[in-house]
Order: sequence, then structure tokens, then C-alpha cells
Amino acid sequence: MKYGIALFPSKPLQDQANSFRMRYDTHYAQIPPHITLKDPFELEEDQLPQLLKSLKEIAKNADPAYIKVYKVDSFYPQSNTIFFKIQEHESLTYLYKALHQDSEETKPYSFVPHLTIGQDLSEDEHADIVGRLKMKEFEHEETIDRMQLLYQLENGSWTVYETFRLGKEA
Amino acid sequence: MKYGIALFPSKPLQDQANSFRMRYDTHYAQIPPHITLKDPFELEEDQLPQLLKSLKEIAKNADPAYIKVYKVDSFYPQSNTIFFKIQEHESLTYLYKALHQDSEETKPYSFVPHLTIGQDLSEDEHADIVGRLKMKEFEHEETIDRMQLLYQLENGSWTVYETFRLGKEA
Repeated sequence: MKYGIALFPSKPLQDQANSFRMRYDTHYAQIPPHITLKDPFELEEDQLPQLLKSLKEIAKNADPAYIKVYKVDSFYPQSNTIFFKIQEHESLTYLYKALHQDSEETKPYSFVPHLTIGQDLSEDEHADIVGRLKMKEFEHEETIDRMQLLYQLENGSWTVYETFRLGKEA
Repeated sequence: MKYGIALFPSKPLQDQANSFRMRYDTHYAQIPPHITLKDPFELEEDQLPQLLKSLKEIAKNADPAYIKVYKVDSFYPQSNTIFFKIQEHESLTYLYKALHQDSEETKPYSFVPHLTIGQDLSEDEHADIVGRLKMKEFEHEETIDRMQLLYQLENGSWTVYETFRLGKEA
């Protein structure tokens, strides 16, 4: 089964992201707006309990994730994905590193925290949208106190399997 | 903000439900296949901690939910909603009652456990689909060990806020 790990921001930021995603993001209907912590990976179901245990431990030792959106940016020319760029922060770096410590290809320095608002766009659309949105001011900050383990259904959509509270339980 | 409480079944049952939902359910893109435990309700954000505490307690005292799908049925003539009918079971009744004990209009006897696969259909479509699916055999059983608290975004889609493990923590 295919799993992924993500942060879901507050409703206001999700609503704002969706106002763009509904027009620009082919994944709009498959998952709510999110910040990916670990890209989709395959896992056999019998390995799930171990993963859950490890995620619980990572979450317990984490601080709540500090999210500061400060502009719209794009991965162009690597891809035409457009996103809210999120400031690097140790709370995010910790999560990213902890979630990738077991993987063979650890890429701790390639982590660009972001919330996708557009993808699979044509060159022209991409240039037009990025051009317009880069001039706008986007400022939003918040703290997210949970991360989610999701799995993918056959239609490409994602279902949340479990929530992990970041930090010590209140 | 609008919240709801639901069970998400395993991937096989969700995939099967989606094979119908993609054609028959207007909410297909707004939420994965689910079994509603509590209909959408309004809650001020400052009341959220109390709700979380109460859900944690209810979940801890619950047994994992036993789900046995045994046929396709419809709420007709009350509505044109088509669903996988789920056998009544004390694990489900407990959750339903516990989640409605504070509401003024307690309707413990109106709980029909189901997983919607079609809604907002015309009379003709509804009659045609129900007619065909009622003749098919649907048998599936499983145990679900978590329930989810979700909230609704402005576009009508739902985001999982928190997962509650049913039963004692392992």
C-alpha cells in the first residue's frame, strides 16, 4: 500500500490554498491542502505497526511545526509546481530528518517546505500564474500541532490513517 | 466551524465504494468513503478542547467497530441516497449513543449504519441503480479500530483533524 506523511494547516490557510488549487491543481480533489513531510512510499501492511510506533516516537520528541508562508514560488524549471513557500524552521527540519533517517537515499538538504497550489500546468499557464502571484503579498504564520499518516486509494485520493500529536501530550 | 465524526473502513472497502461513488455520489471528491457516526455540527473553536477530551474518553471505552456490509439499500422515499447497509452491532450503537448523549435531540433508534455510495440522483437514476445493485451480493466484514474527527473547508471538502483509537491503547 502507498503511504505518505503530511501536515494539514488550519482551515483559513487551507481555504486560501484551495481558492488557487481549484483552478490550478490537478490533485485538488484527491487530498486537502497539505505540507508533505515524506513523499509517497510503499509499505507492506505487516510493517505498519512498526511504522506507527516510530511515528509516535518521532512526534513525541518533536516541537509543534512552525509554518510561515511568505511568498508564492515555483520549482521551475525542475517542474511546473507552484506553491506557498514556507520558511525553513528547525521544527520542520527535525520532522523531515527524523522521517527520512531510515531511508537509503537521505536528502536532508533538499527539503523545501511548501504547500502546493498548482501543478501539471502548461508552460504558458505556469508562467502567467507565477508572474501574477509572485507580485502579491502572502503572509501567514501558524503552528501545527499534529502530523498525519495517510494512504492512497485506487482512485488516487488519500485517506488519513492516523494523527500524531507533535510534542508532549497535554 | 463545522465538524463531523466518521469511521473510515479499510482500503479494499473504500476502493469498492469509490467504484460506485465516482459515478453516483456528488460528494465523491469531498471526502473518502466513510460511515458517519455524527452528522455535521457547528462548534466554536474554543469548545474544541472539551470535545477532544470527550472523544478521547468515548474512544477509550469503546470496542473496535465491527462492520458487516450485507447489501445495497436506499433511504427512498425519504431521500435518494444509496448505500452499503451495515449490520447493526453493539460496537456501533455504543459509539452512536455516546456521541449523541449531549445533544438535545437524541435519536438513538434512528441510527442506520451505512456507507453512502450514491446521492443527489434523479428518481429514474435512483430506481435504476438500486434495482440493479439490490440483486448483487455484497458481503464484507471488518473491524475498524479508529474514528476520526473532521472539519469542513469552504469548498465543502473535509479534513481530518484527529484520530481516536477505539479501545485501550496497545
